[in-house]
Amino acid sequence: MKIMSINAGSSSLKFSLFNMDNEEVIASGLFERIGIDNGHCEIKYNGEKIEQDIDMENHEEAVKLLMDKLITLNIIKSLDEIDGIGHRVTAGGELFDKSVLVDDKVIEDIISIRDFAPLHNFAQATAVKAFRSVLPNTPMACVFDTTFHQTMEKEQFIYPTPMRWYRDYKVRKYGAHGTSHRYVSEEISRVLGRDDLRIIVCHIGSGGSVSAIKDGKCVDTSMGFTPLAGIIMGTRTGDIDPSILPYVMEKDGLNIGEAIDVLNKQSGLLGMSEKSSDMRDIVDGMNNGDEQCLLAFNKYCRAVTNYIAQYYVLLGGADVICFTAGIGEKSAPTRRKICENLACLGVKIDLDANKAFGEFAKISTDDSSIGVYVVPTNEELMIARDTLFLAKNS
Amino acid sequence: MKIMSINAGSSSLKFSLFNMDNEEVIASGLFERIGIDNGHCEIKYNGEKIEQDIDMENHEEAVKLLMDKLITLNIIKSLDEIDGIGHRVTAGGELFDKSVLVDDKVIEDIISIRDFAPLHNFAQATAVKAFRSVLPNTPMACVFDTTFHQTMEKEQFIYPTPMRWYRDYKVRKYGAHGTSHRYVSEEISRVLGRDDLRIIVCHIGSGGSVSAIKDGKCVDTSMGFTPLAGIIMGTRTGDIDPSILPYVMEKDGLNIGEAIDVLNKQSGLLGMSEKSSDMRDIVDGMNNGDEQCLLAFNKYCRAVTNYIAQYYVLLGGADVICFTAGIGEKSAPTRRKICENLACLGVKIDLDANKAFGEFAKISTDDSSIGVYVVPTNEELMIARDTLFLAKNS
Repeated sequence: MKIMSINAGSSSLKFSLFNMDNEEVIASGLFERIGIDNGHCEIKYNGEKIEQDIDMENHEEAVKLLMDKLITLNIIKSLDEIDGIGHRVTAGGELFDKSVLVDDKVIEDIISIRDFAPLHNFAQATAVKAFRSVLPNTPMACVFDTTFHQTMEKEQFIYPTPMRWYRDYKVRKYGAHGTSHRYVSEEISRVLGRDDLRIIVCHIGSGGSVSAIKDGKCVDTSMGFTPLAGIIMGTRTGDIDPSILPYVMEKDGLNIGEAIDVLNKQSGLLGMSEKSSDMRDIVDGMNNGDEQCLLAFNKYCRAVTNYIAQYYVLLGGADVICFTAGIGEKSAPTRRKICENLACLGVKIDLDANKAFGEFAKISTDDSSIGVYVVPTNEELMIARDTLFLAKNS
Repeated sequence: MKIMSINAGSSSLKFSLFNMDNEEVIASGLFERIGIDNGHCEIKYNGEKIEQDIDMENHEEAVKLLMDKLITLNIIKSLDEIDGIGHRVTAGGELFDKSVLVDDKVIEDIISIRDFAPLHNFAQATAVKAFRSVLPNTPMACVFDTTFHQTMEKEQFIYPTPMRWYRDYKVRKYGAHGTSHRYVSEEISRVLGRDDLRIIVCHIGSGGSVSAIKDGKCVDTSMGFTPLAGIIMGTRTGDIDPSILPYVMEKDGLNIGEAIDVLNKQSGLLGMSEKSSDMRDIVDGMNNGDEQCLLAFNKYCRAVTNYIAQYYVLLGGADVICFTAGIGEKSAPTRRKICENLACLGVKIDLDANKAFGEFAKISTDDSSIGVYVVPTNEELMIARDTLFLAKNS
């Protein structure tokens, strides 16, 4: 069985084609600048990389080009070999609490809640339509970034704002990175052979969120109404005092959209360091004595620590802490600092094991009160698994 | 020695006159609707309460009236008996890191940072000027709500926003309720005979903040740039996803000032319950089966719990948790819920001792990992103590 995972943007298309018998990637690639000039595509397979400059008028043309390439490169012999296509969708709102097979209503619904992810949902719906038009008989699924968090209780997802904003406008915590949090928590449960774990997943990359998971269900997560909320990120603030907004709007002559844009794109590690949004640069700067990089590093680690502390208490203790995504999988200094911050909970890090770089590893000592792990995430595989399940049961 | 504490608003004046030999209140009172019609004053002394309807053109007239009353009521024989007057000031910005004797420069400085507390600083400066004009030879001090928090390290007070906003506009965490946090932490240290305690103070009233204190110094506090930040309050949200603002502004046709006003005045317990901002009403509603009151209660207690969890880890453990202010001193159900939330840290509440109502009490069991106390706050006395100290050493 072959399943394809799709992650579409407004002008891009990423794909991974899985052989689901062994869950290995057969081919993957990226189509960029769709609908703009200077289009480009690249496909990786069999250890090779094919690149081509080619303009694509719209997503449908990109999909046709992708299918054409798969066949001419002999990756598949016929389009019938693709048993299902799974699409990543950013916002599922309250309409979707699990992955679903695509039909017209699903596409309508995704567009109807595009307010919650203006840059993403519409583009993703467009990509779904393009695939359906090229491959009308292939089962297709949508896998949402938010559905894993739909198990949160009202106490966790409601905001202390007027209840009318929830009733009338659906203002609430939706969370994000749900597919990653689900993948990582299922993976650690599988490895440890337990389905009753209290797990704290730190998905920390350029975006980032922390989730509290109990018995396989999400109890709380740090992202909120939008992905601006929660922990500090590469260029995002996370939660802050909203009163800062009117103050700086007046000082800098910004409107609300521009001010929120600063909180999304010029803040976080970048805002504090004034050097970079990339944790590697921050750590380099810190090691070279840059005080703002040290400040950004410490404050970032403290923000993650604060959520771990909250969720430790919320879960009534924790069995496992998992680090995943770019920083979580690859930044040993960040993992070390966060674990050292947690010493008073009995967390002990094994500095040798913490050298792990992008691979599964236990990085806590055997006498640590909480097991700490690096668990590389794989959202594409999670999407493919859901798609396979839905295609088989359709 | 007699010292007077003053808490002035734009149209009100509260005072307490202390005998500093035993730190007891000789007289206290409230002058209301200054500069408006239907002025009113009341003075309590010797277990009696005197009230009078009387218009006061401005703060200076109110001060003259107050002094006149003190003498005609025979509370003091001459104004010379007042050895010092201490004024509460809301915002000290970065200009003040301790209480100070008043001079012209101090008044100028307080007005210069009125941006940080638009409703308060100007009115308080006006009151200081009025007292100086009526009592030109009496030592006068300003005691700021923020100075106790000026010991925070940069890692705690800086926001993950562009560093320019701090450099140019002084956007940072200032905190509030500092005089209360200082009073309560000093009081518990005195009672326990230790100055090396790790203390978490929960000042929870209609406003509220949580502070982490180590060796008598504030390490972190939950209020931020303004008193909107931190925990959920009677009508305030605390920290939330700032992206909610542009969304609801568009939906409800609000400008930024109006939207922030909703977060300040129609949110928190009131927003969630749609019944009341008063915790007593919320608890009553909850006990009568009102689901929104139950939600508001649980979410409020969780918000306080989250900060206690963060600060427990930040301090590397905690020796003492103190509850103070209206809810902290008087709401047994709130204290109980928060302590039960903390069970996994080894906190154990003594349900009988938790009946304490507005009085000092230890409410944790002897085998609780952290001592939990009710410590009634006394900001007026703290202001009087600082004023006495400064007057003696001037």
